[in-house]
Amino acid sequence: MSLIPEITQLAKDLRAGNRVALAKAITLVESTKEEHQLASEKLLELCASALVKSKRIGITGVPGVGKSTFIDAFGSLLTSQGHKVAVLAVDPSSDLSRGSILGDKTRMERLSYDSNAFIRPTPSSGSLGGVARKTRETIALCEAAGFDTILVETVGVGQSETTVHSMVDMFVLLVLATAGDELQGIKRGIMEMADLVIINKDDGQNATFSKLAAANYRQALHLLPEKENEWTVPVLSCSSINGNGVQEVLLSIEDFFVQSELKGSILKNRSEQNGYWLKQSIADELSLFFYSDPTVKKEMEVLLRSVKAGKKNPFSAARDLVRNWRYRS
Amino acid sequence: MSLIPEITQLAKDLRAGNRVALAKAITLVESTKEEHQLASEKLLELCASALVKSKRIGITGVPGVGKSTFIDAFGSLLTSQGHKVAVLAVDPSSDLSRGSILGDKTRMERLSYDSNAFIRPTPSSGSLGGVARKTRETIALCEAAGFDTILVETVGVGQSETTVHSMVDMFVLLVLATAGDELQGIKRGIMEMADLVIINKDDGQNATFSKLAAANYRQALHLLPEKENEWTVPVLSCSSINGNGVQEVLLSIEDFFVQSELKGSILKNRSEQNGYWLKQSIADELSLFFYSDPTVKKEMEVLLRSVKAGKKNPFSAARDLVRNWRYRS
Repeated sequence: MSLIPEITQLAKDLRAGNRVALAKAITLVESTKEEHQLASEKLLELCASALVKSKRIGITGVPGVGKSTFIDAFGSLLTSQGHKVAVLAVDPSSDLSRGSILGDKTRMERLSYDSNAFIRPTPSSGSLGGVARKTRETIALCEAAGFDTILVETVGVGQSETTVHSMVDMFVLLVLATAGDELQGIKRGIMEMADLVIINKDDGQNATFSKLAAANYRQALHLLPEKENEWTVPVLSCSSINGNGVQEVLLSIEDFFVQSELKGSILKNRSEQNGYWLKQSIADELSLFFYSDPTVKKEMEVLLRSVKAGKKNPFSAARDLVRNWRYRS
Repeated sequence: MSLIPEITQLAKDLRAGNRVALAKAITLVESTKEEHQLASEKLLELCASALVKSKRIGITGVPGVGKSTFIDAFGSLLTSQGHKVAVLAVDPSSDLSRGSILGDKTRMERLSYDSNAFIRPTPSSGSLGGVARKTRETIALCEAAGFDTILVETVGVGQSETTVHSMVDMFVLLVLATAGDELQGIKRGIMEMADLVIINKDDGQNATFSKLAAANYRQALHLLPEKENEWTVPVLSCSSINGNGVQEVLLSIEDFFVQSELKGSILKNRSEQNGYWLKQSIADELSLFFYSDPTVKKEMEVLLRSVKAGKKNPFSAARDLVRNWRYRS
């Protein structure tokens, strides 16, 4: 019993912009069932030829910085100008924290009722690698369905930014302008990935700190090496609540895409990202095979202990483990 | 014909502090011959039990910052206080650039004639993984030979800092105080690894820029997250030529080790590094097996092209490649 005829219809509906088809397609891509995996590969093939000129934008910032309200304000501005906006999320921790990102659609009051917006919470399944794969595939599906702007939200902790960075064209960092040490809590390396820094919640009593914070961030950014596309990272302020500055954010993002297109860096970047994901996935698949071997599991437990205690050389331990595995099977 | 009796004697001589034995042992570790590999594993086992309380310090900075002259001045100060100092280098590019680091021992005028110092250029063989492994093993041999301070020099470009960072207890960044944009040229993430920033060449007309540069670096460091051992990264100035400030550098490094020992972070860090190298080496070994397969090579070439062009999904391409390989053998 093949799913193929059904898949062909699904791809057709999806490419016609049918939201129900899109949601169904994403569910298929997210499924871990073997037959669904095969079907979704077919589906992705059918959608891959849809060469949509989309903008993929990653949005990050620590919890509480106001990512959802910003996306609500920014996305609504985009749809009001005729764009179709998809909002996705990468949050590998959501399994434990019960969906800290986009779990509550009500935080996107306007967008969630907007027929030109499509909001999808983070895939709930386990590993970052798995989430990354599903999100990348979901991006492809959304683009095939005619969404020209893809916003990928991620929480500012750990490895998830690097992952999102390797699937978007532009990376936006949201920060707060609070009193005192306002750059605290930003993880290593995040600042260097940012193509745009936005000081959010520039309203109420925070507004007084905004200018100082902006100056601090500009100085910090000045210390970082130049971007390959020669883009100078702007620091803007905005209030997602009263809407101040959101228009300027949009203009700045448009500038980024104009300059990147001129430099040819968008296509070059996407091509490199594809190569990166191939090599990354090969490493993942190899590890999967290796670490799921029951004998390896047993051997590894013992060896890791003596390697950590400095009793065994990690290099020869690794070589023995891998060779045993390779010649056992 | 076993090398084992010879190895036992070599280990004995090495642990007695014999420099010729040490040099011979390192050559063995660096050899790529199968029988030498086995012999060096035995040697490392015999040396591993020598639990020397050493300090492992990584030293990085862009070419021209004066790493060699700094190491010469700093190392001489250490030996004058009765320490035994080994100087190693990690420079995976040296194969091409013909040994840009330590290729010219004459840049360490004093240390190279110092009987309490041991200088070893970067291993010349290919990959960073290979160099890393050999350097880690060389550190173990130097410690077994009684060297209590290991300085690992690395050039401030690319991945080599991360590699060195994962084999030392402390990481020192050398920078220049020149006019204008003095933080230019420092690669992403390097600043965040530093436990100490030294503004070198604080002499002649540079001295006037030193104070300003120090203030800039302090501000930049202030923006970074706190270290796990709660160490506040100092910014010091020194002149490796007239010796000003080198004493202060030594005091600061001693402080670092005192605080890290109090917090238990040295041992914890080393144990984590061992675990890291085990997992890293497993991944390396798996890749080695995989990419050296002739069928994989052919398939990969074709696939990478269509993946980069966006014609094939990287995830399914990876899965197919790895499964084919696994079930073929």
